[in-house]
Amino acid sequence: MAKLEVLAELVGGNLIGDPELDIRAVAPLDKAEEGEIAFLSNPRYLKLVPECRASAIILPPGVEFPCAAAIVCKNPYLAFAQILTFLTLSPSQAKGVMAGSSVAQSAVLGNDVTIYPGCVVGEHVRIGDGVILYPNVVLYEGVEIGDNSLLHAGVVVREHCRIGANVIIQPKAVIGGDGFGFAPDGEAYFKIPQVGVVVIEDDVEIGANTCIDRATLGETRIRRGTKIDNLVQVGHNVVIGENTIIVSQVGVSGSTEIGRHCTFGGQTGIAGHLKIGDNVTIAAKGGVGGDLKPNQLLSGVPVIPHRQWLKASLTFGHLPEMRHDLSQLQNRVKMLEEQMGKDRQ
Amino acid sequence: MAKLEVLAELVGGNLIGDPELDIRAVAPLDKAEEGEIAFLSNPRYLKLVPECRASAIILPPGVEFPCAAAIVCKNPYLAFAQILTFLTLSPSQAKGVMAGSSVAQSAVLGNDVTIYPGCVVGEHVRIGDGVILYPNVVLYEGVEIGDNSLLHAGVVVREHCRIGANVIIQPKAVIGGDGFGFAPDGEAYFKIPQVGVVVIEDDVEIGANTCIDRATLGETRIRRGTKIDNLVQVGHNVVIGENTIIVSQVGVSGSTEIGRHCTFGGQTGIAGHLKIGDNVTIAAKGGVGGDLKPNQLLSGVPVIPHRQWLKASLTFGHLPEMRHDLSQLQNRVKMLEEQMGKDRQ
Amino acid sequence: MAKLEVLAELVGGNLIGDPELDIRAVAPLDKAEEGEIAFLSNPRYLKLVPECRASAIILPPGVEFPCAAAIVCKNPYLAFAQILTFLTLSPSQAKGVMAGSSVAQSAVLGNDVTIYPGCVVGEHVRIGDGVILYPNVVLYEGVEIGDNSLLHAGVVVREHCRIGANVIIQPKAVIGGDGFGFAPDGEAYFKIPQVGVVVIEDDVEIGANTCIDRATLGETRIRRGTKIDNLVQVGHNVVIGENTIIVSQVGVSGSTEIGRHCTFGGQTGIAGHLKIGDNVTIAAKGGVGGDLKPNQLLSGVPVIPHRQWLKASLTFGHLPEMRHDLSQLQNRVKMLEEQMGKDRQ
Repeated sequence: MAKLEVLAELVGGNLIGDPELDIRAVAPLDKAEEGEIAFLSNPRYLKLVPECRASAIILPPGVEFPCAAAIVCKNPYLAFAQILTFLTLSPSQAKGVMAGSSVAQSAVLGNDVTIYPGCVVGEHVRIGDGVILYPNVVLYEGVEIGDNSLLHAGVVVREHCRIGANVIIQPKAVIGGDGFGFAPDGEAYFKIPQVGVVVIEDDVEIGANTCIDRATLGETRIRRGTKIDNLVQVGHNVVIGENTIIVSQVGVSGSTEIGRHCTFGGQTGIAGHLKIGDNVTIAAKGGVGGDLKPNQLLSGVPVIPHRQWLKASLTFGHLPEMRHDLSQLQNRVKMLEEQMGKDRQ
Repeated sequence: MAKLEVLAELVGGNLIGDPELDIRAVAPLDKAEEGEIAFLSNPRYLKLVPECRASAIILPPGVEFPCAAAIVCKNPYLAFAQILTFLTLSPSQAKGVMAGSSVAQSAVLGNDVTIYPGCVVGEHVRIGDGVILYPNVVLYEGVEIGDNSLLHAGVVVREHCRIGANVIIQPKAVIGGDGFGFAPDGEAYFKIPQVGVVVIEDDVEIGANTCIDRATLGETRIRRGTKIDNLVQVGHNVVIGENTIIVSQVGVSGSTEIGRHCTFGGQTGIAGHLKIGDNVTIAAKGGVGGDLKPNQLLSGVPVIPHRQWLKASLTFGHLPEMRHDLSQLQNRVKMLEEQMGKDRQ
Repeated sequence: MAKLEVLAELVGGNLIGDPELDIRAVAPLDKAEEGEIAFLSNPRYLKLVPECRASAIILPPGVEFPCAAAIVCKNPYLAFAQILTFLTLSPSQAKGVMAGSSVAQSAVLGNDVTIYPGCVVGEHVRIGDGVILYPNVVLYEGVEIGDNSLLHAGVVVREHCRIGANVIIQPKAVIGGDGFGFAPDGEAYFKIPQVGVVVIEDDVEIGANTCIDRATLGETRIRRGTKIDNLVQVGHNVVIGENTIIVSQVGVSGSTEIGRHCTFGGQTGIAGHLKIGDNVTIAAKGGVGGDLKPNQLLSGVPVIPHRQWLKASLTFGHLPEMRHDLSQLQNRVKMLEEQMGKDRQ
């Protein structure tokens, strides 16, 4: 619960209406009730507003609205996120090392940590202040976890990998599994030990059941602020730049370097040993087989400029009729050529 | 072990042969031995029957068969499943809360539950009668599990999610991980708290390592009878209708609503904020970027009618020769036009 | 640490330089320091060698090199893997059954096993000599694990599945989850019990969060020496031949049989009930819908020969202009035909 003026100040917005209004929760525009604040990020949804029963609304400048109160700001979506955070995330109280967990004697724990039952913390692990390990998290030997990071149930971090501060890892993600490296030895394969590590910088989020493989030698690195969705595969020795968005089920093959502020749509695949520039956006299901310069929007397998792909993919279904037309044209032209030849004889 | 007449009655089929025959197990047509019952769902496999050594066979009406006994019924595949269930699934005896698990004082457990070692059951969890939690299942605070549901090893259900009755969840599935929502804040991203839940209705099955994300606000909902395979991603606020089949490695992006009795082939991707009608079938590896009307069979990226896609995809390999032919035709037509022009001068 | 002559003998290579040289570690060509050995598998990287500060280098015959010492051998990549293994993998000391694990009375353990906290070993499980179970591994009833196999944290092996010797399973893989089988019963689906098992032969490696489903009846089998990457789906009753490579996020549908020494690129999908011959390579993102003869390199959805696919996919972006040109040609030919008709009247 918060006064509307507190929320307006929080997001740096202009308050319209009663500053003393009590706001209990955030709700979608079409479901908000009294005591709740809704938000309007896109004027397209304006038609929904007349039915709004919310007590207040977050919206961009210059839009009429039907509620008694509003917070007007340039980035209503961000303001929504900030207000939702303010109203819902209370600082949890540290619970310490709970019974049923197993923490090695040589592990070093910061202040105010919470370690739930079923966690196993290996030798020489270092855990920062305010860290929360939900049940059944496993940290192998020598792992480091920065301050205020949160590892959900069943996360595994293998030996010597380093996680930064304010990192969130969703349930069951695997950090530091062996990279997929085998040397052909006749028909069989000889395993290449994967003796490198994974480094995850501050403010990164990693999705459920995602896998970030450890490097063969050296490190796999996820830079600050990058957000990775569920079921993503990141191969050994990959480097992902800052503030990049990797949507669900993307796969990045080994040793590829990805720039900052990229966005890869769901189920995209990136081959190994590539360099992808900054601000590259790949639409869902893209396939990247070569280096990419920065500042591009691409689609397809292999990727081509998105607009070109859109047109080409719309033409694709016409391929059989095009082939038929082409074959007919060839006959007609042949006939014309023969007639022309005869006429000129 | 069961008498053949018991099995015939179970599936509502006509018995041919000795009702007292003892049937020990179900086996494939080509491997069945004495004491076993085979099944024939498709008369195409009839050529295998002469070699059948099974004691009995389940088959549709009007098919000759080489065994001494048979159960004749309209849906032999269903009868096979029912008989296999009858012969193999014995009601397991409840084992209670086993040592090595951790159950919060405020959790409410039904009758005849089994909670294996390593499970962690949070505050205010409610577990119905006959529920089985295999080892290392984690239920966060406020989770509800309906009667006779079965959660395999390592399943995680996050806070306040609700699972119905007779639900089966394969190992390591994650129910209620955070949806992937971030508000751009300059080049960086601000996490949008995911404060909604996941609701899974009765008779749903969820595959191993599948992720069903919790809603931002409100709920993500999987309706009654839907079956989801392994490694599937279901985004926040998605609704999946009743009796829908989602094959392995499918991804459904946030806020999409899927109808009832759909089937999505493996590795299909569905964009966000879409409405997919009832009885829509998408072939494997399909990509859906727009709303879909009911009762369609579609393929491709983006999806087009399946027959059209089949033809177009067969033509695809001919594209280079088509382009070459087209270029040649252009030259030939140009030459014809020039000659024609000369002739007419 | 090892003498260079020991390493040369290990890999059967020719030693050039001081046999007494102490080698501490393996490092990439461009990062190796004194005391380290680098390797050169591809003469393309030769240009990097002049800057090499390594004490020694592993390389193929007939290549000049700038270091004081070298090991010359036919397969430098394999030699690199062997030397890295020798220098990094020390035989771990068995730790026995550690506190916080739960091992059934009826389980049979070999010599020198290590079972970390949080593991749950079911009734009648058989574990071979030298096996390591990292924390929170779950083995259901009747599982067998061969000698010297290593199961990383959180791996689940369901009832009666059999794992061979020298198998490595990365964290959170699920072996023996139910196959995805349901018999239509009107609009709803009836679960087909999956009462078969998974058999994993010797020397197999299985990636993190990969799922190998148990058979409906009979077995799903992964043959000796096959290597499977992360997040792969292998359906029920699949058989994968020896020494096959399955890259991340591949899906193989039920009952398909795959030959030996195949390679499937990332995100490839294989339909069910197929036979794939030996030595078949599918490029990343391929889609296989029919049987495949041995010894092929294929790409695309559906797969076609790789070279044909490369050409066709490069033409794809030109489809709209091709369609436009075709339409124009049709008009021009029609005009020619009309003129020709008039001229001949």
